This record gives sequence, structure tokens and C-alpha cells, in this order.
Amino acid sequence: MELTHRQEQIIEIVKESGPITGENIAERLNLTRATLRPDLAILTMAGFLDARPRVGYFYTGKTGSELISEQVKKLKVRDQHSVPVVVNDQVSVYDAITTMFLEDVGTLFVVNQKALLVGVLSRKDLLRASMGNQELSDVPVHIIMTRIPKIKICYKDDLLVDAATKLIENQIDALPVVVDREDGQEVVGRLTKTNITKAFVDLVREE
Amino acid sequence: MELTHRQEQIIEIVKESGPITGENIAERLNLTRATLRPDLAILTMAGFLDARPRVGYFYTGKTGSELISEQVKKLKVRDQHSVPVVVNDQVSVYDAITTMFLEDVGTLFVVNQKALLVGVLSRKDLLRASMGNQELSDVPVHIIMTRIPKIKICYKDDLLVDAATKLIENQIDALPVVVDREDGQEVVGRLTKTNITKAFVDLVREE
Repeated sequence: MELTHRQEQIIEIVKESGPITGENIAERLNLTRATLRPDLAILTMAGFLDARPRVGYFYTGKTGSELISEQVKKLKVRDQHSVPVVVNDQVSVYDAITTMFLEDVGTLFVVNQKALLVGVLSRKDLLRASMGNQELSDVPVHIIMTRIPKIKICYKDDLLVDAATKLIENQIDALPVVVDREDGQEVVGRLTKTNITKAFVDLVREE
Repeated sequence: MELTHRQEQIIEIVKESGPITGENIAERLNLTRATLRPDLAILTMAGFLDARPRVGYFYTGKTGSELISEQVKKLKVRDQHSVPVVVNDQVSVYDAITTMFLEDVGTLFVVNQKALLVGVLSRKDLLRASMGNQELSDVPVHIIMTRIPKIKICYKDDLLVDAATKLIENQIDALPVVVDREDGQEVVGRLTKTNITKAFVDLVREE
């Protein structure tokens, strides 16, 4: 939404002097209150200003990008996540690499015999292991994986933007989407930077 | 921007019957024109409706998400890209893997003696090579890299959302940001899914 010059002026006045009555805003701009009424109505309904009876207008602190951010904040992890690819903690690094290529994913989640999350394997972890001198089919993945409690996780009901922030701040490619169980966490999804990139594209494509 | 029920009704009427005068819209809703005036002003200024003198209101075809998409379409590759990490096409796969770990990136760009782009190396390419039986310090990267013209590229002035679409559609992690030279392309940046994820987070954080 593009604001007119006058609407920008009104926001500035209310930012500086709010709460302020419509009459006082009009005075400052050398206009009548009637002239300002549509502008005040627009700014209020669009969420930039708020009005309280007998108090006047005050600035909500919302800018155009905040109104966008409200829209983005409606997106949940459940709207975007992918199917998880899991391996058992006893499989070899060699088999994990094979699984990664077969499934064409960048991150594997490692589970124990109870199917509960115990670790994460990134391409970087596997590449590092493959550079070592060990025989890859002799090394079980639990030796090289990143393990609980160092793993970052998310839930289906988390905001997508919060999960995206976790990916950025922890410099990781994927989060397991989990469900809490009595004795641990079950993996039900995989949230990656690819999912976030798709969500970004969808903001434009949903036209 | 959240629309009221009445504003949604107005949009529906204009969609169906536009161009239509304010008076006719008021009639349909059993309201006076004066009552509708603020709503029509808001819908017009927010870009949902447009008004032409003596013709009436018509629907611009813009929905809430289109207005967001206009905002997203202002973002360019130049606003988000990272510094590129390049290796010469004669270096060994072993050295490339070392560079990838030292620089902590997921993609390396390969250049020739003229510093022009000739290839791309992903973690997946390097992991695949490391699984082979070759001595990694004996294999030059140009043997295993993805090479021109198979490489997808972008420019600083490209829309961020177009670059994001290329990443998704080609299932790749990064695009080289290039400048055209007489005999090829110079690499001036690196655009990754991490950059797009940051842009997504910034949509909310720019408050």
C-alpha cells in the first residue's frame, strides 16, 4: 500500500506527538478536520494508527513491512516441510552416504531401535568422514553424527519464520520436525532451506 | 492489512459488476453513499480498487498476496548475495574439499586462468568423488565439476525471487552471480538458499 505525502506527514506527527486528537493534527497541517477524515480513516483501518475515544490517535508502530510480516507470520512449519529420511544409528557411514544419494537429500536423521531421534548427519559430516583413513563400511554413523542434545528441532505448529531463523543462526541446512513421545522424539518431517526458499517464491506466486 | 466483512463485500460486488458507481454499490448493500465513502477510499488507496471519473470503481485484480508480492519483487540479487569462493580448474579434488571446509561453503565456483567461470562444484559432487577409488589429490576438479553451459547463473540486477525460482527448479544450492565479459563471465558473488532464507526472515524482522 502506497501512502500519500499527506498520510506520511500525519504518521510523522502522530509518531512525534501521539496521542493527539484529529483536530490537533489538522491544525498542524493547516487543514480542516473534515479534509483529514478520509486519511485518518485509511491510516487507522490499514493498521498504521490506532484511535481511542477522548485520547486521540496514536502510532501503532506498524510500517508497511510490518503488515507484510503479519502475513508471513501466518505460515507454519506444517505448510512447507518435506518427508524425513531416517537411518538407524547402527548403519555404516558408507550405507548412510548411499542412502543420501539414493534419496537425494542433504540431511539424514538418525534414530535408535525405538525409532526415536538420536542424531543428525549432514553432507558436510559425511564428506569429512569420507576424507578420513577409516574404512567407511566399518564405521557406524553414531560415531560421526551430531547428537542430542546438540540437535536443533522444530514442531509442525512452529512459525516457519522461527524455524528459518534457527537454520540461519545455527548455520545448518535442515531441522527435524518432531513429535514429543514419552521417552524422546519421533521424527515426522524435515524442514530445509529448500522449503524456506519455496515459501519465499510462493509469496509471489500465490497471486 | 485485514479487510472488514463490508470491504470484502464491496470487492466482490466490484469484481462482479465493475465498473460500477459508488452509488450503485451503496444501493446493493442497502447503505448510503456517505457510509461507504471511507471503505471505498481505503480500498482504492490500498490498491484493491481503482476509480475513474464518470465511469466508477473497477477491480484492479490485486489481492492481498499480490500486494505482498509487489513488495517481494523489489528485492534484488544484489541485496542478498554472498562473497564467492573460487578455485582454479587445475586444483585437485582434495584441495577443493579442503577449501570448502576452510571457507565453510556448500558450493565452489571453478575458474580458468583468465579468471572466467568454467564450472561449479557442490558438496554432493565432492562427496561422490570421494567415494570413488581414485586418489583425490591426483584428480583435477575440472574432471568432476558441472561445466558451462550446464551451469545456471544470475546477475546482480535479477529479482531475488527469480533467482530463488532457479534454485528450486534446478534443484541446486547456489548460483554464481556473474558479470559478462567479452570472452566469458566473471564471478562476483554467490547466491544460495541461505541468502533466500535470510531474505525470508528479514521480511519479518525489518519491522
